[in-house]
Amino acid sequence: MGRIICCGLGPGDPDLMSVRADREVRAARHVAYFRKKGRPGQARRIVDGMLAADVSEYPMEYPVTTEIAFDDPEYVRLLSGFYDEWAERLARLSRAVDVVVLCEGDPYFYGSFMHLYARLQGRVEIDVIAGIPGMVGCWNSVGQPIALGDDVTTVLMGTLAEDELERRMRNSDALVVMKTGRNLAKVRRALASAGRLADAWLVERGTMPGERVTRLIDVDKSDYPYFAIVLVHGRGRRLESAE
Amino acid sequence: MGRIICCGLGPGDPDLMSVRADREVRAARHVAYFRKKGRPGQARRIVDGMLAADVSEYPMEYPVTTEIAFDDPEYVRLLSGFYDEWAERLARLSRAVDVVVLCEGDPYFYGSFMHLYARLQGRVEIDVIAGIPGMVGCWNSVGQPIALGDDVTTVLMGTLAEDELERRMRNSDALVVMKTGRNLAKVRRALASAGRLADAWLVERGTMPGERVTRLIDVDKSDYPYFAIVLVHGRGRRLESAE
Repeated sequence: MGRIICCGLGPGDPDLMSVRADREVRAARHVAYFRKKGRPGQARRIVDGMLAADVSEYPMEYPVTTEIAFDDPEYVRLLSGFYDEWAERLARLSRAVDVVVLCEGDPYFYGSFMHLYARLQGRVEIDVIAGIPGMVGCWNSVGQPIALGDDVTTVLMGTLAEDELERRMRNSDALVVMKTGRNLAKVRRALASAGRLADAWLVERGTMPGERVTRLIDVDKSDYPYFAIVLVHGRGRRLESAE
Repeated sequence: MGRIICCGLGPGDPDLMSVRADREVRAARHVAYFRKKGRPGQARRIVDGMLAADVSEYPMEYPVTTEIAFDDPEYVRLLSGFYDEWAERLARLSRAVDVVVLCEGDPYFYGSFMHLYARLQGRVEIDVIAGIPGMVGCWNSVGQPIALGDDVTTVLMGTLAEDELERRMRNSDALVVMKTGRNLAKVRRALASAGRLADAWLVERGTMPGERVTRLIDVDKSDYPYFAIVLVHGRGRRLESAE
């Protein structure tokens, strides 16, 4: 019986992978990873030059990303069939060998692997290796403490409704906004309404080649990147003695 | 001219340190770390067996932790003098040699090193190496996705007032509560009022020897640990297509 080893790869710089993930990736004989059809895939790119020459690769290509609306039943059917099929294939493969699944960031934190995990738990031995989440890499790239003292930190998805974004931005000390993509204009309006735009940073490709760290207010709207995280730093509330 | 290299050590398991931090720790000739007087110190304990035999160690011992109330001017004066003094000593030392400062978790995320960083920036070359935050190690120990889809994740300090804790617990999908310590009874009451107690986990010494993962509701009040993180998992809100 083999195992499935889900490796959190961290934010992108291979040097920020954990010692354990690094070891598993280098020793892997079979590696699987998600990617968009026709793309190399971000997870696969992180391990470039680390894989054994004769490794077997299993790119798990999403049947659809943004071509169909998310609330179309066809979208749900396609994605769910895709996860079912790959859960089956990985379960079968791991009867004989260990399979390393490459995952960006930390697998338990908004990770796509969780769709497979839910389908495989109890059927196969699964090891998950923690990674540095993408947002942690991004705030390290800015080079300021994201939160201090008694700050409240809120992690928001740019997909939320504008009024909810605005309310939560107003009420938190430190802010992280993920899934910005097509939502960046909305995220920016919500930050402005909440009085936080002047303090917001945009980090694109954090810790990776081509990294860009800019104040969001200075980014031209025609130059909005597709993959980026927005950060607003806390200022260090202090209510009671630190433990 | 030397540098100050602040190494994020991750949640506690040395195998979860980044490849870069692991390399810097093993190569270090001078290491500094915070600790409570008379204790080995958690950061120092993580690197046990990794340091060179002839390394010079600089334990930075807090002059006070919980012996004086935080709002006593004496407390503020003592701590601020302590950080001033160590900033001075590290600045002087790093004129000649590289100094590795060991920090638990990720240095930019509620890290004590930031008190030195604020005093040293612009005077000394400082490299900060990202680490897996303690909370990430803890949710990996529970073995469930902490957040999925469009979940909102909120990180709270147990030091906040009970009514603020309750309100924020009610309004977030995924929850992380740090600095529980003496505040755990209050945190538990706030979770109960917010209707989240049944779903709360307590993780003590996550990823380390002696790790304990329990449902908070099952923990006897006489057995409350001093260092622990409370987690409530999100259920995966879905509002719009993932990017």
